[in-house]
Amino acid sequence: MGTDGDQVDPGGEDRTPEKEHASERPVVTKHGAVVSRRAALGMMVGGAAVGVVGAKVGFSSSSGGDLSGTATEMGLDGPAAQAALKTYVPGGEYDEYFMMSSGGHSGQVMVYGVPSMRLLKVIPVFTPESWQGYGFGTDQGNIVLEEGSDPAKSNPLRWGDTHHPALSETEGSYDGRYLYINDRANGRIAMVDLRDFKTKQIFDVPNLQTSHGGCFITPNSEYVHISTMSPTPNTPSGYAPLSRYKEDFRGFSTWLAIDQNTGRFIMDESFQIELPPYTQDLADAGKLTSFGFGFINSYNTEMATGGNMNMDGSMDPAQSLEATATKNDYDFMHIIDWQKAEEIFKAGSGLKTINGMTVIPLDMAANEGILHFAPEPRNPHGVDVNPTGDYICVGGKLDPNASVYSIERIKDAIAKQDYQGTDDYGVPILTLESVLEAQVELGAGPLHTQFDNEGNAYTSLFVDSAVAKWSLGPKAGKSDADSWKLLEKLPVQYNIGHLVTAEGDTVEPDGRYLVALNKWSIDRFPPVGTLHPQNFQLVDLTTPQMEILADMPVGNGEPHYVQMIHRDKLKNVIQVYEPGTDPMNFTTSPYATAAGEERIERKGKDLHVYMTAMRSHYTPDVVEAQQGDVLNLHITNIEQTPDATHGFAIPQYNIEASIDPGEVVNIAVPLNRAGTFAMYCSEFCSALHLEMQGWLQVAPQ
Amino acid sequence: MGTDGDQVDPGGEDRTPEKEHASERPVVTKHGAVVSRRAALGMMVGGAAVGVVGAKVGFSSSSGGDLSGTATEMGLDGPAAQAALKTYVPGGEYDEYFMMSSGGHSGQVMVYGVPSMRLLKVIPVFTPESWQGYGFGTDQGNIVLEEGSDPAKSNPLRWGDTHHPALSETEGSYDGRYLYINDRANGRIAMVDLRDFKTKQIFDVPNLQTSHGGCFITPNSEYVHISTMSPTPNTPSGYAPLSRYKEDFRGFSTWLAIDQNTGRFIMDESFQIELPPYTQDLADAGKLTSFGFGFINSYNTEMATGGNMNMDGSMDPAQSLEATATKNDYDFMHIIDWQKAEEIFKAGSGLKTINGMTVIPLDMAANEGILHFAPEPRNPHGVDVNPTGDYICVGGKLDPNASVYSIERIKDAIAKQDYQGTDDYGVPILTLESVLEAQVELGAGPLHTQFDNEGNAYTSLFVDSAVAKWSLGPKAGKSDADSWKLLEKLPVQYNIGHLVTAEGDTVEPDGRYLVALNKWSIDRFPPVGTLHPQNFQLVDLTTPQMEILADMPVGNGEPHYVQMIHRDKLKNVIQVYEPGTDPMNFTTSPYATAAGEERIERKGKDLHVYMTAMRSHYTPDVVEAQQGDVLNLHITNIEQTPDATHGFAIPQYNIEASIDPGEVVNIAVPLNRAGTFAMYCSEFCSALHLEMQGWLQVAPQ
Repeated sequence: MGTDGDQVDPGGEDRTPEKEHASERPVVTKHGAVVSRRAALGMMVGGAAVGVVGAKVGFSSSSGGDLSGTATEMGLDGPAAQAALKTYVPGGEYDEYFMMSSGGHSGQVMVYGVPSMRLLKVIPVFTPESWQGYGFGTDQGNIVLEEGSDPAKSNPLRWGDTHHPALSETEGSYDGRYLYINDRANGRIAMVDLRDFKTKQIFDVPNLQTSHGGCFITPNSEYVHISTMSPTPNTPSGYAPLSRYKEDFRGFSTWLAIDQNTGRFIMDESFQIELPPYTQDLADAGKLTSFGFGFINSYNTEMATGGNMNMDGSMDPAQSLEATATKNDYDFMHIIDWQKAEEIFKAGSGLKTINGMTVIPLDMAANEGILHFAPEPRNPHGVDVNPTGDYICVGGKLDPNASVYSIERIKDAIAKQDYQGTDDYGVPILTLESVLEAQVELGAGPLHTQFDNEGNAYTSLFVDSAVAKWSLGPKAGKSDADSWKLLEKLPVQYNIGHLVTAEGDTVEPDGRYLVALNKWSIDRFPPVGTLHPQNFQLVDLTTPQMEILADMPVGNGEPHYVQMIHRDKLKNVIQVYEPGTDPMNFTTSPYATAAGEERIERKGKDLHVYMTAMRSHYTPDVVEAQQGDVLNLHITNIEQTPDATHGFAIPQYNIEASIDPGEVVNIAVPLNRAGTFAMYCSEFCSALHLEMQGWLQVAPQ
Repeated sequence: MGTDGDQVDPGGEDRTPEKEHASERPVVTKHGAVVSRRAALGMMVGGAAVGVVGAKVGFSSSSGGDLSGTATEMGLDGPAAQAALKTYVPGGEYDEYFMMSSGGHSGQVMVYGVPSMRLLKVIPVFTPESWQGYGFGTDQGNIVLEEGSDPAKSNPLRWGDTHHPALSETEGSYDGRYLYINDRANGRIAMVDLRDFKTKQIFDVPNLQTSHGGCFITPNSEYVHISTMSPTPNTPSGYAPLSRYKEDFRGFSTWLAIDQNTGRFIMDESFQIELPPYTQDLADAGKLTSFGFGFINSYNTEMATGGNMNMDGSMDPAQSLEATATKNDYDFMHIIDWQKAEEIFKAGSGLKTINGMTVIPLDMAANEGILHFAPEPRNPHGVDVNPTGDYICVGGKLDPNASVYSIERIKDAIAKQDYQGTDDYGVPILTLESVLEAQVELGAGPLHTQFDNEGNAYTSLFVDSAVAKWSLGPKAGKSDADSWKLLEKLPVQYNIGHLVTAEGDTVEPDGRYLVALNKWSIDRFPPVGTLHPQNFQLVDLTTPQMEILADMPVGNGEPHYVQMIHRDKLKNVIQVYEPGTDPMNFTTSPYATAAGEERIERKGKDLHVYMTAMRSHYTPDVVEAQQGDVLNLHITNIEQTPDATHGFAIPQYNIEASIDPGEVVNIAVPLNRAGTFAMYCSEFCSALHLEMQGWLQVAPQ
């Protein structure tokens, strides 16, 4: 490679004489200098011409100067030029990793390629999205969104705040089957099927109004976990005065069993564990040596409720949560023995049912050894289990240290009942001395930790705007002398929240790339108004020192956590459905219609249209109806060519479908408005795409 | 630049001994070869180490080999390595151009940087978007979406199909003030203010059910134009049988006057011109020599209405529009003299008012010389005016030629009444011979044409999957010998729709970059399910031959047209609002609240909360209300730091706001559900972001 090209002409300054006649209007170069147009073009063209004439150019030493010349002309210094080459993925070649990113309050999931950092797709999850017709009339989006919005509620939910994706696992490694993600705003969880990258289920988890401690998945996808963020009143109305916070409010840790064939939740095999009304934060699953355990951070063990202004207008600024919920030096890491909980759940006695969910009561969880607490530096954010499962790393947010607990010590302390007492709810608190393995001072605002394949940890430092690389201990393969050391700090731009390493949540990380998920971009990108993008920074972990390879603006959501999976593990992705597929379950739809079988059937007010779509027409292309009818469209895309997606839109009716090759969509439209409507294909499909149009005739009543 | 760095160590193979202990698990390189893990890391690390140790590296001839080595290790051949360097924009440096992209049926506008092709922002326009709180409770989104949805309609519109952006112009050049875009699905137009990159107005244009022929803007932003796509029955009910197509259906060309201070539409200075019921397609404004004219393509002058299956089930495939609407050899380019139309409109006699819009009737338009037709090869798509205004280039879609009309000939033919007759509606048809300047055979499926600064045109060829570069004629600066020649064809991947050149719609294009907006990507990106991304390809126009520099997947919408503006022209962008700003009009909001002025006022069932937000609390942070109240939140972000945006979310209530520094948002929430709701900041703002939470208490009735 790279040595079989044509011979290179080392010159080039005069190869493009027609460009020399360009006008003299000044132009601004990439790095801001104003030069004459001719000079700029000369620079560009001269440089570009070197080394690119002919289809393929070798990198012999005699031609090595080509790239340097171009780099200089583009204003790239050495590291920048190296970064350019390390992140560029030519068209038709594929990124090595996929990054599955939460979209924050966009409610969606974003899929990026690494190292190019290109956004490959946005998967609509909790918020309707019209490009994919999700929530604009078709059954897939409508069913998922409706099922995910408890019908007893007076406000059907139409947005979410996605935070923490969890890829399904087999033996502690990503297996590329399913992706789960929580809705921090409304206490819900969704499942995306990685065969077609579509959301198949949203579940409004009972007893969780909001959720932060999810998702994590157990090492063989036995359960996906989601827990409360703010506790919720455990009262029939869902209301309680804040004066009753300690008595009436509770949190819940939810263990949803997964159907291995569909990825869906099996409700009668799922359970919750009642928790005290602290604010449960991030969570992680044990693995290998800590298999069977789950860990949840908490803050506001002060059980403060705010109140910085009274309803009579008097001010009390000291009552803001930022002050009152940060008083205790230590909060509690929740240590959950989910195998023990599963036993108790299956035994079935002493359990409660709350809003349809089987619950292990708090006193039972405390008494049966399901739930223990360990002190952790105040107001922690991340709790992250290293690849061997031995170390649980806590980012102390208001403490400069990473605090590392060992599962060996935890098990030992539990066995010895090495308690400093219990909390107000009777949950035993292990002594800090018995469980803490190490503390490593990292800097200001440690939040979240990821891992490589060499026993190192990487922790985001929000306040420092940096990534700290530090060494774990002997159980992660480090010598005693090399253990528990801060190795390096890399400044990032700016204010990093989470971070991710390649396959960093698995038992076998790849140790190749790290992405810093920065919350602020400020001046890193050209101004795009008063709302700035976030900034993903790709970091090379294979260089002697960590190096930033690229900044990627995120201007369509606010990622919190992401996971990075190797491309080869996504081996189930399909690009074309079997003919007549119902995408909700990959079976043949009862409404599938083949060419020649198209028909219109009237059943009273219900008009059923069995329609096909192919380049470049619908059959039928004219539908005659009466105002007051309900139009039931069953549309089959009868193409089998990859990428031959058709749209289907009805103006003025909020109907917009995206129908992939082989797919069947069903759309029910109450025809409450008379008129003549030019229904059309909204996805540019062919040279005669604009002619792919029909008429919906709704005669007035 | 580039020569002041540290001395480079030419070695590097052994610089990172700790990496040599990595496990031997096989890994797959970027270009697909399976190698041992050690070898792969050695490759990566060895190469990377060269030239990147030390902060800055020179490009002396002795170090020129560094980049070649990295390129080889990354599997990049010469052109790919050049492309990498030409497209990489380091963090903190800015892309030279902004691309304002339609988002198709996503309903939004996407903003990209060129040459990095990075997505900088998605601007919500026609479809609610929760990240920016657009349509999830706050007044900006709600007002815009409501105003843009005719309240008489039974289905409030909540999506759109954005097609053709138009940047405001001064003297024929982009001025960076406003962006207009049409909703092809529902016949609407929106205005985005480029001070804060937010949508400020949606207008549901009367008499347009759907729209394709827009937007274009006149050279001094006198008018923005939007015309019908499918004609609509001009009947009170909006319904007419298809048998009455010729009699009852009509199209409309709309000229919306622009308020130069606000960018909004001035309705009493705006007018429509009635058109025959052909399908009006793309449109463009005359400039310089053709100033005062507008051009609209049309197809389906056959006035076919489809009907490939009858309601009784009998099939008639030959009736599909793709067959019946492609019969005529020629359709009609609409030539509109908008200055003459403006005179007639201002004179005021003989006009009609239809659905509130002043309309110049079709017969008047024909008789007064406002509307002429010119024959154009059947089923054209693009009609594009070159920078000098002399040539109008039509892409014939079902014809291999670009057909070029000259404004000089058109004016002359109109003056001489060189007519071949009239159409069925009395509109005079100029003879083809009198107006056609040239035809240039390009290939299969020519669609849309853009221009550089040297008299060349670039036309997308959908069927050929190629960009054709060809020369215009003498009025564009070409010698007679060099005129009207196909110069080059560049294959693109795949099936290009529109294309854009840098500032290509202005009187002064930059001739530097071209972007091919490809509809199909097929195998260009790793599989992401049954719906494939589109593919933006960046093309270098400064090299002797056109070269593709980058592929960028578009996985969140389907761009149709885009415009590319130089960064320096976006000089009005603000990053922080003045304190207490109402973003709808940039004035101080009557609800602006300063620190210390927070208050709660009850007026019957209306509870008004004047709240402030700053890191890391709301004041007040507890609101006590009763079920049945209406909560009126007036929230001021009292920060003045760029990027210090706060969110505001209420769980279970579909309330999600994004509040930029200085901004005031108003949210009205009917409290129909009792409960205790943990309202919170949804935008990660500070180390104590998670503590930025309060309680909305809704006591049961």
